[in-house]
Amino acid sequence: MPRTLAFLRHGQSQWNLENRFTGWVDVPLTEKGEAEAKKAGELLKASGVQFDGCFTSMLTRAIRTLNIALDAMEEPWLPVIKDWRLNERHYGGLTGLNKQETRDKHGDEQVHIWRRSYDTPPPVLEDSSPFPSLGDRRYTGIDVPKTESLKLTLDRTEPYWNEAIAPALRQGQDFIIAAHGNSLRALVKVLFQVADDDINKVEIPTGNPLLIELDETLKPTSARYLDAERATELPPLPR
Amino acid sequence: MPRTLAFLRHGQSQWNLENRFTGWVDVPLTEKGEAEAKKAGELLKASGVQFDGCFTSMLTRAIRTLNIALDAMEEPWLPVIKDWRLNERHYGGLTGLNKQETRDKHGDEQVHIWRRSYDTPPPVLEDSSPFPSLGDRRYTGIDVPKTESLKLTLDRTEPYWNEAIAPALRQGQDFIIAAHGNSLRALVKVLFQVADDDINKVEIPTGNPLLIELDETLKPTSARYLDAERATELPPLPR
Repeated sequence: MPRTLAFLRHGQSQWNLENRFTGWVDVPLTEKGEAEAKKAGELLKASGVQFDGCFTSMLTRAIRTLNIALDAMEEPWLPVIKDWRLNERHYGGLTGLNKQETRDKHGDEQVHIWRRSYDTPPPVLEDSSPFPSLGDRRYTGIDVPKTESLKLTLDRTEPYWNEAIAPALRQGQDFIIAAHGNSLRALVKVLFQVADDDINKVEIPTGNPLLIELDETLKPTSARYLDAERATELPPLPR
Repeated sequence: MPRTLAFLRHGQSQWNLENRFTGWVDVPLTEKGEAEAKKAGELLKASGVQFDGCFTSMLTRAIRTLNIALDAMEEPWLPVIKDWRLNERHYGGLTGLNKQETRDKHGDEQVHIWRRSYDTPPPVLEDSSPFPSLGDRRYTGIDVPKTESLKLTLDRTEPYWNEAIAPALRQGQDFIIAAHGNSLRALVKVLFQVADDDINKVEIPTGNPLLIELDETLKPTSARYLDAERATELPPLPR
């Protein structure tokens, strides 16, 4: 029996709009982001897939996107599990900077490395930062990162996949995962077996559900964006 | 260590407004109901209680009330568990009727009995009803009732309290329960040890959080509505 997954990157956030590195800062959706979430829900409903539940992060923009989509699907009763391991990549010392400020501060070449490298984390978030995640009670008992490369993001996302999501899929259930550009990118890397050097080319659009069918070994057998006009290139299906 | 519970009856629904028996029909909130939910969230935030999680029903009006309140609390990341045993009382054959239609169809005396009696259920919902809950996939595997007295509502709500809510409270956690006039009334009956003949006098207002402190045996030691202007009479604290 095939399983279906829908990856849903949150709609446009205030800092997407301002082109700032967001990471774990809990910024809200813009009005456009809320509209994207509603459309995503309508597309998920029209897909005809009868989902059994949802996973999302601990960040407002992903949870709100999911809630708006579930309302549009007229299925707000679906179970939702929220876990920090689906949070966005922690951008460390880049948090809060826009792209120009980052280039001014660190130079074009260094920024290019951080953008393209799989395993080079930015500098750590200083304790003097105005954007602390430490002390936020939602992360009580969690060793909050101070910076993450995409690899370090995957190092927490993949175990969560293995421990929580994959076992539920193996029981024949279908899920929505509402999360972030990089936590979803990490899951795409795992599922599609994308090479380290290629994964940063994968760019998941905001608010455009990516519907993935999996065989019983949880290998993807098909993948498509529900809003074809806003689709981006997907990695080839694994052999 | 005292525990805190907040009972939150959903905001005004379309059928509250039309004075119709709603039960398991999945009607939406009105604009006023959404505003009540937002205010409830603001009051819960102002209470200063740091909740650990939430329980709600499978019905849209309770889930939506909770989501709006959590947004207003700026704590949408709180875990939420949805369970049908917190659903509204199933009104059987009265479902969809307004109060006048009910009197016309069944007579004043019979309506008075149904309204006041603890254990007299209305006639069952006919299979020809335009308001079936059977076949709704959210209730797959559940023996959906065809009618319920308040006693029959309590007969499913109390076990859920004992199995799911009470153990979590005993671990020292504080919860919001977003539900319905009669499922919350049933919980009030259990917690405050209200007599069968007295429980129908307890009328929980929509969208007004009822904050209950419990001792370590889960006996209420205090109870108050956060919106004092819209408070109704509460049963005495149990000895």
